[in-house]
Amino acid sequence: MSEVKIPYKIYLEESEMPTQWYNVRADMKNKPAPLLNPGTLEPMTLEELSQVFCTELAKQELDDTNAYIDIPEEIQKFYKMYRPAPLVRAYCLEEKLQTPAKIYYKFEGNNTSGSHKLNSAIAQAYYAKKQGLKGVTTETGAGQWGTALSMACAYLDLDCKVYMVKVSYEQKPFRREVMRTYGASVTPSPSETTEIGKKILAEHPGTTGSLGCAISEAVEVAVNTEGYRYVLGSVLSQVLLHQSIIGLEAKAAMDKYNITPDIIIGCAGGGSNLGGLISPFMGEKLRGEKDYRFIAVEPASCPSLTRGKYAYDFCDTGKVCPLAKMYTLGSGFIPSANHAGGLRYHGMSSTLSQLYDDGLMEARSVEQTAVFEAAQQFAKIEGILPAPESAHAIRVAIDEALKCKETGEEKTIMFGLTGTGYFDMVAYQRFNDGEMSDYIPSDEDLKPGFASLPDVHK
Amino acid sequence: MSEVKIPYKIYLEESEMPTQWYNVRADMKNKPAPLLNPGTLEPMTLEELSQVFCTELAKQELDDTNAYIDIPEEIQKFYKMYRPAPLVRAYCLEEKLQTPAKIYYKFEGNNTSGSHKLNSAIAQAYYAKKQGLKGVTTETGAGQWGTALSMACAYLDLDCKVYMVKVSYEQKPFRREVMRTYGASVTPSPSETTEIGKKILAEHPGTTGSLGCAISEAVEVAVNTEGYRYVLGSVLSQVLLHQSIIGLEAKAAMDKYNITPDIIIGCAGGGSNLGGLISPFMGEKLRGEKDYRFIAVEPASCPSLTRGKYAYDFCDTGKVCPLAKMYTLGSGFIPSANHAGGLRYHGMSSTLSQLYDDGLMEARSVEQTAVFEAAQQFAKIEGILPAPESAHAIRVAIDEALKCKETGEEKTIMFGLTGTGYFDMVAYQRFNDGEMSDYIPSDEDLKPGFASLPDVHK
Repeated sequence: MSEVKIPYKIYLEESEMPTQWYNVRADMKNKPAPLLNPGTLEPMTLEELSQVFCTELAKQELDDTNAYIDIPEEIQKFYKMYRPAPLVRAYCLEEKLQTPAKIYYKFEGNNTSGSHKLNSAIAQAYYAKKQGLKGVTTETGAGQWGTALSMACAYLDLDCKVYMVKVSYEQKPFRREVMRTYGASVTPSPSETTEIGKKILAEHPGTTGSLGCAISEAVEVAVNTEGYRYVLGSVLSQVLLHQSIIGLEAKAAMDKYNITPDIIIGCAGGGSNLGGLISPFMGEKLRGEKDYRFIAVEPASCPSLTRGKYAYDFCDTGKVCPLAKMYTLGSGFIPSANHAGGLRYHGMSSTLSQLYDDGLMEARSVEQTAVFEAAQQFAKIEGILPAPESAHAIRVAIDEALKCKETGEEKTIMFGLTGTGYFDMVAYQRFNDGEMSDYIPSDEDLKPGFASLPDVHK
Repeated sequence: MSEVKIPYKIYLEESEMPTQWYNVRADMKNKPAPLLNPGTLEPMTLEELSQVFCTELAKQELDDTNAYIDIPEEIQKFYKMYRPAPLVRAYCLEEKLQTPAKIYYKFEGNNTSGSHKLNSAIAQAYYAKKQGLKGVTTETGAGQWGTALSMACAYLDLDCKVYMVKVSYEQKPFRREVMRTYGASVTPSPSETTEIGKKILAEHPGTTGSLGCAISEAVEVAVNTEGYRYVLGSVLSQVLLHQSIIGLEAKAAMDKYNITPDIIIGCAGGGSNLGGLISPFMGEKLRGEKDYRFIAVEPASCPSLTRGKYAYDFCDTGKVCPLAKMYTLGSGFIPSANHAGGLRYHGMSSTLSQLYDDGLMEARSVEQTAVFEAAQQFAKIEGILPAPESAHAIRVAIDEALKCKETGEEKTIMFGLTGTGYFDMVAYQRFNDGEMSDYIPSDEDLKPGFASLPDVHK
């Protein structure tokens, strides 16, 4: 054991910050299944992908062989404004829990987007700018991704059109205003500005929208507007590539102090945070150099890994996107209105799905009252009010630390604290008022989602 | 000039963090005028002050001779959870402004209270706990102080009763929920829970409250409840003492890289941030070791330094607090409803008032549309959405940098970025919608405030 006293927070020096992203697919024996053209059911080509995404990003999406990809200097410069993110030793939490476990968290919330989403937003905006585009379109649910993209576009002087799930648009006016302050246009989805939006509104008048629907609208606008492309904040392999900065920094900070985590825990919606956090550690595991336990934590009310099917599925409601093979509840799955936080996407990143299917990663689902209890406990002890999404990882980290208390094991636990909950106070209010309850879908409840799965056998 | 490349962000090592606060009063030839007993008009004694404040804090309030005061270990531990705060080189802002000036800012917003207020909150809560108290009472306007105190009390397991100005309570439900999440009780002020609250409600039915009124309520409850004391987030000398951590860290970071600021800029409401930021630099100036320009920035609509009188005044509406000699607009002054941000207190810290009166510091007032323009510009370029209060300092920092552009001077400018604006989106929305306007009170408008000044000639 090292004699060096570990500080509360480890910040890398600027000169120690990663200059390359790590592409975990390069080290995977079983590569993630390719995206398919929904018309031909053949793998998407670079040309086809480039109609939706920037060309450079389409290349990254298809690249499963190059392990390291240089981070362009302009992006490194932007990273330096809000990174390195600290690796924090949760001394106070350890003391309160009276656990022999050592708990660390990588905190990604110290920027105005309030989450790790900015890591990929600036990359995607940069490549769009470099390609000479006028702007980008995207969707946002809770609003973290939309905010991050607005910030990146403001910095690069790029137009940004955000389709925001209508229920969030109405319930989170402050998120909307942050995006507007950064100069983005924000449209509640479904809207009358797209064909698919009109169709959905006609079929479901009064609908409060969904992420899958907002994706369809954003893609439609990107494809039909000269000088625009679509960008997405999670699920895609390119996003996991950019988010590897989280894990690379965490690993560099740990290596600096000779810390080796036994368990690495991350919340999982589309998979961008978890994929980024674990990637360099997973790389070591894939190459047989080290072993780690990885735990993906998802809401019991939207359990794509723990109760989903591993199958090709639509990524969006309008079925305009390529098909992806993933653990999925079906694009027709709609999380219960009872569900408070994010992590409500029906599918999981293809890369993480393959790793999970290969038994390289565990998954666990947790109920939301237990998640908010952990969030409040963490806020009081460690001083950071977490995003509900992040609190899923906190819940399991605390549970694992309490197990160590029982067994006396001095395990080292690291989890990803993806962001802050400052725009999630409606959910916290429900919790504070004792009005939050749990909901676990029955097998019957999951049937309509599975019924929406396309008939693709690959 | 140093050859060393200055990083975007300078973080002190944990071992470099200050272990003592600096008390600028010790180096002042003209000491700040003492607080007076409102009944006898004699200086408040330790015994009298101890009825309202914790004894240790009362001692700090009266101490104008000891320059350095040890930070208790428990507080240092808490500081390590969210400090050191970074000193940031605003490279991107410099580039955008094309100024030869070097711009730095000390960023205090990376904690859940969203501001520097936590630095004093933990200190005040600590001394209350040490004295064996059950809890503390306080007031909050915009909510940053109340949030900070709630966090500190949750950490130390101390009860926390917050009187929140009614208009903020209603307009900022999310701030309220953050405090509740941390276990504080939050009461809209004026309320029926106090005699002074009832009196004010009877005299002004339908009033939306004021900071001065909320102070009166919090003090009344503290004085009349066994095991409680009152705590205040600004104005007092003890608060400036705790906030010296801002300036001490900034100075240590600058010294590490041989940086000497020419101009130091801070926003000023009650003076806690400005006083803390400038204190060690002011100490050098007072001791004749170095010279700096200090600029206090206040709203044109609440101009206590630039248009107030230097006189003894009431600190609160109910006139239950000691009298303080300060630059003041009179306790009867009420900022225009047009005014969006914080910085709405009628008076200014006695310490800063004396320094200003002695010509050791400048003051400037700015109008709010210009402030929000600076806020938006800064957010887009530097990636942090600032609190409206902090944006007052940004405005003047940009103005000074643009002057350097004209003159070609390579001045080094440092300003305090006290916090983030995530709970101020209603004000940003007004700005985004073009509905924000300026208001400068006429001399006539200031008369009622001055008429409320007590007849004390000291």
